[in-house]
Amino acid sequence: MAKVAIMGYGTVGSGVYDIIKNNADRLSRSTDGEKIELKYILDIRDFPDHPEPNLFTKDFNDILNDDEVSVAAEVMGGLHPAYEFTKAMLEAGKSVVTSNKELVATYGTELLEIARGKNVNYFFEASVGGGIPIIRPMHQCLTANNILKIAGILNGTTNYILNQMIKNGKTFETALKDAQNKGFAERNPAADIEGHDACRKIAILASLASGKFVDYNDIDTEGITAVTLDDVKYAAAMDSVIKLIGYAEFGKDGKVYSIVSPMVIRSDSPLSGVDGVFNAILVTGDCVGDVMFYGKGAGKLPTASAVTADIVDAVKHSERSKKIFWEKQPDNIMDDKDSRKFRYFIRTNDNAENIRKIFGKCEFVDNLISGESAFVTEPLTSSEAEEKTAELCDVVTKLRVMD
Amino acid sequence: MAKVAIMGYGTVGSGVYDIIKNNADRLSRSTDGEKIELKYILDIRDFPDHPEPNLFTKDFNDILNDDEVSVAAEVMGGLHPAYEFTKAMLEAGKSVVTSNKELVATYGTELLEIARGKNVNYFFEASVGGGIPIIRPMHQCLTANNILKIAGILNGTTNYILNQMIKNGKTFETALKDAQNKGFAERNPAADIEGHDACRKIAILASLASGKFVDYNDIDTEGITAVTLDDVKYAAAMDSVIKLIGYAEFGKDGKVYSIVSPMVIRSDSPLSGVDGVFNAILVTGDCVGDVMFYGKGAGKLPTASAVTADIVDAVKHSERSKKIFWEKQPDNIMDDKDSRKFRYFIRTNDNAENIRKIFGKCEFVDNLISGESAFVTEPLTSSEAEEKTAELCDVVTKLRVMD
Repeated sequence: MAKVAIMGYGTVGSGVYDIIKNNADRLSRSTDGEKIELKYILDIRDFPDHPEPNLFTKDFNDILNDDEVSVAAEVMGGLHPAYEFTKAMLEAGKSVVTSNKELVATYGTELLEIARGKNVNYFFEASVGGGIPIIRPMHQCLTANNILKIAGILNGTTNYILNQMIKNGKTFETALKDAQNKGFAERNPAADIEGHDACRKIAILASLASGKFVDYNDIDTEGITAVTLDDVKYAAAMDSVIKLIGYAEFGKDGKVYSIVSPMVIRSDSPLSGVDGVFNAILVTGDCVGDVMFYGKGAGKLPTASAVTADIVDAVKHSERSKKIFWEKQPDNIMDDKDSRKFRYFIRTNDNAENIRKIFGKCEFVDNLISGESAFVTEPLTSSEAEEKTAELCDVVTKLRVMD
Repeated sequence: MAKVAIMGYGTVGSGVYDIIKNNADRLSRSTDGEKIELKYILDIRDFPDHPEPNLFTKDFNDILNDDEVSVAAEVMGGLHPAYEFTKAMLEAGKSVVTSNKELVATYGTELLEIARGKNVNYFFEASVGGGIPIIRPMHQCLTANNILKIAGILNGTTNYILNQMIKNGKTFETALKDAQNKGFAERNPAADIEGHDACRKIAILASLASGKFVDYNDIDTEGITAVTLDDVKYAAAMDSVIKLIGYAEFGKDGKVYSIVSPMVIRSDSPLSGVDGVFNAILVTGDCVGDVMFYGKGAGKLPTASAVTADIVDAVKHSERSKKIFWEKQPDNIMDDKDSRKFRYFIRTNDNAENIRKIFGKCEFVDNLISGESAFVTEPLTSSEAEEKTAELCDVVTKLRVMD
């Protein structure tokens, strides 16, 4: 009998509760008969109508000091007190599993180190891609590969908004309002639409793939607020779509190049068909080539199902640390922002002659807006693209193209 | 230091050799520093130009009787002597990993039972989907889910052929010849184009998902030899594509419904965009909803990368049996072929009046061939579809539609 605690009874926490109650048979098959018993739910709020009121506590120490509890799911979100609680639990020799991407991206290095020292586990499958299996498959199944590249649609809210623009011709503002009405976007949507959520997730994936801590503060991050309906129409005319991509590339020198940016994706990429609130992560390994993981990147039960799988794994590996791990490096591991070239899709009110003079070879796109020119450049570094577009008069749009 | 053997030095076996040699650093990071040393390669052929001729043996007993060898990769293919060798190794307390779908689908139940009894492992990630992580993610990451449904594009050869028909307007015969010239199809392509390869793979996935042995002999299997270029064009006109699908559904009563069949797939399904030799497996769980795994379903290094990941896992779990497992049931677990209804796409030279009389409500498709009628039925069982089409005069095509 493994006794576990849920810390935080919000959307994900209540989902974990439901799964432990409803899929108990299935779970005990996975743990080879060992039953998982929920002993505590930690929350400062009252849930008077809950069927098991005796499980609730407002005092974290009840869980921390209970020797019977071997695993806790931290599904509180936010940095504090999630960090303090997680750290205390790991130091007490209890495993912690989490869906808290902010915490993993910020304090993951330290928490993984503590877990390793105590021979317990800190698992975070649900922190990236919600219910999509990605952390464990990347770590285990692709272990024979040197990971060369990761490109992911990591934020369902922005993907829903872009999809509404692409499929239903809505403006960004209308699509955002629609997403808010449907509960897909927060009242304050900045974390999603400005790319910060995707940034934390690609930082976690890049850390995992490289074994080295990638600080999300070091990742150039651009959201989708500047993407217009006209951009989307141009992309469609180019047999492409615009997606917010969390991107990381791993050099042979051990350096990591990473960026979050809206990109033009051709329709022959498997990422192009990822619609609505779905997420997908395309991973390129030196042996396996491209593999992609696809599914619901958020939501109560999808996310809770990943948290619960982590609980099961922690129960099966109690008192044995698995090697999901990365370490902080003494030197800067981030590659220069100009180390990687992209082609750019550019719209401008400048004329073709000027464009050719500045950019040299480029591929013009039939213009959909009278008076402007649209074209795709040859591969350029970030700085080159900036310098050259600065020479144009009146740039409307500048978007990276994913090749 | 873990000593391992490769049994069979064909395409996959030589790929495993290459990865162990070239990605040694990466592998030892995964095994927490424990080095994987290749001690034997078993093959009856001579490889005089190989850089390490001393590794080769023609005598299986060299491996079996060497106490230092703890893990072997069986990448010989075929049933015999792969079965005898695997059984002997497991009984000697050594773990075996394999890419041999035929062996897993046929003797998997017995071999898993022996492995469990000896507290060692029999892993087969590479037997389905080549390099795509699917066995382990389904088993571990989706463990909190009751699996409701699996639908997979499991055979790259047929997908390549159908793709050539769809994208380049080739006939089945021309596309098959093209696939043979490119090395994607065997000289004798029956196992692929008649669906037997996909059938073994869906049998393995269905066994894994249900925990019960699903015998591939019990799965109705239909290949793609009857699919014509005109069918493909009709599908395109319906905003769909035709794919060979390995399909399984899991009832609450514990019964399994499974079929291999070409199906009409609408363009909004994530399976519709899976092109060329790629494979993809769409799994539906009761909590997570739809997740999809995508990648190269065959090929030297992709498959070898999955085999090597299994070797790493077996080394890490030496003398500890993981719970990847299914058991033979005393009763028939297969659901009746009429327990599941599909809509059907039908082409006939019969007239609309007759069609309506026989099928009742149905959705007519603009006909592309003069003189014939094309339509999609309401959901029907297999028998209903057979009976009703038998009443039509001159049926050209009858294909299931995946909803």
